[in-house]
Amino acid sequence: MNSAVFYHAGCPVCVNAEQQLLSALDSRQFQVSVVHLGENKDRIADAEQAGVISVPALVLDGQVYHINFGASLDDVKGASA
Amino acid sequence: MNSAVFYHAGCPVCVNAEQQLLSALDSRQFQVSVVHLGENKDRIADAEQAGVISVPALVLDGQVYHINFGASLDDVKGASA
Repeated sequence: MNSAVFYHAGCPVCVNAEQQLLSALDSRQFQVSVVHLGENKDRIADAEQAGVISVPALVLDGQVYHINFGASLDDVKGASA
Repeated sequence: MNSAVFYHAGCPVCVNAEQQLLSALDSRQFQVSVVHLGENKDRIADAEQAGVISVPALVLDGQVYHINFGASLDDVKGASA
């Protein structure tokens, strides 16, 4: 099973879109997890290491897809300070 | 069957990413089509109407996801002139 990690920061506008996109993924291929970086600040380093520079972002097997634009990771860090 | 339309403009950097993302979609849910706007200039109007402002973009049942950033639709128009 491959991994799909969805990073976001709670952006209300994005929630419906995220739900749609995640439900569109092939559940036979991917183990999907969702990480709210605003609530899980200790995962910000993971996101950075994966190459995430803004949220929402979807990481499929190490490949980062920045989807639309909610906030930069710097903004998320600032908001979590 | 729902529709998934992937708009791009041939960006070489994006091709692998596009292939991965499209193959990640649940083929039980979506009829996937791919539109190369550089080669199909008559589809630019469709893309605009769907809300696409840059490529690559994925439209799932009318909802636009701009994925990373290859080029603006204006650039594509310019390149096709």
